[in-house]
Amino acid sequence: MRFQAQIQIHLRPSVLDPAGVAVQSSLHQLGHTQVQQVRIGKHIQLQLEAPDPETAQKQVRELCDQLLANPVIETYQIQVDPIRS
Amino acid sequence: MRFQAQIQIHLRPSVLDPAGVAVQSSLHQLGHTQVQQVRIGKHIQLQLEAPDPETAQKQVRELCDQLLANPVIETYQIQVDPIRS
Repeated sequence: MRFQAQIQIHLRPSVLDPAGVAVQSSLHQLGHTQVQQVRIGKHIQLQLEAPDPETAQKQVRELCDQLLANPVIETYQIQVDPIRS
Repeated sequence: MRFQAQIQIHLRPSVLDPAGVAVQSSLHQLGHTQVQQVRIGKHIQLQLEAPDPETAQKQVRELCDQLLANPVIETYQIQVDPIRS
């Protein structure tokens, strides 16, 4: 079975996000002063082959822990859906 | 009213994503050859003040078009939810 995974990776709330601060400052300069708490993370899409949804979910967690995210400073959320062909 | 916005920005499918290609190659080298079609985008979280959900949604689209995304090479999806205090 083929699965589509969506992975969101963000810096932990306690870690400063300089890119988010810069974007928020730019938005304020453009007049969008109603915007607050900008945080910028990664959104990774990938497809994988796995025998069942549980295995796919487990494999995506392994990918995140090994390579995609840095668990010391980042948290991630994953969503895995089967691709209907 | 206060809203939490989630914004996903990805390169259009026709645009080459070198970061995605590099990550896929690394995953394959680590033995995860079942992974295909890796695309890496941005995930932006922000909070904003707006009188109602429709206005909040409209404002977030404006932010994306003006600053956050490059509509020539990127597409974006937004989700805006009220923050219950």
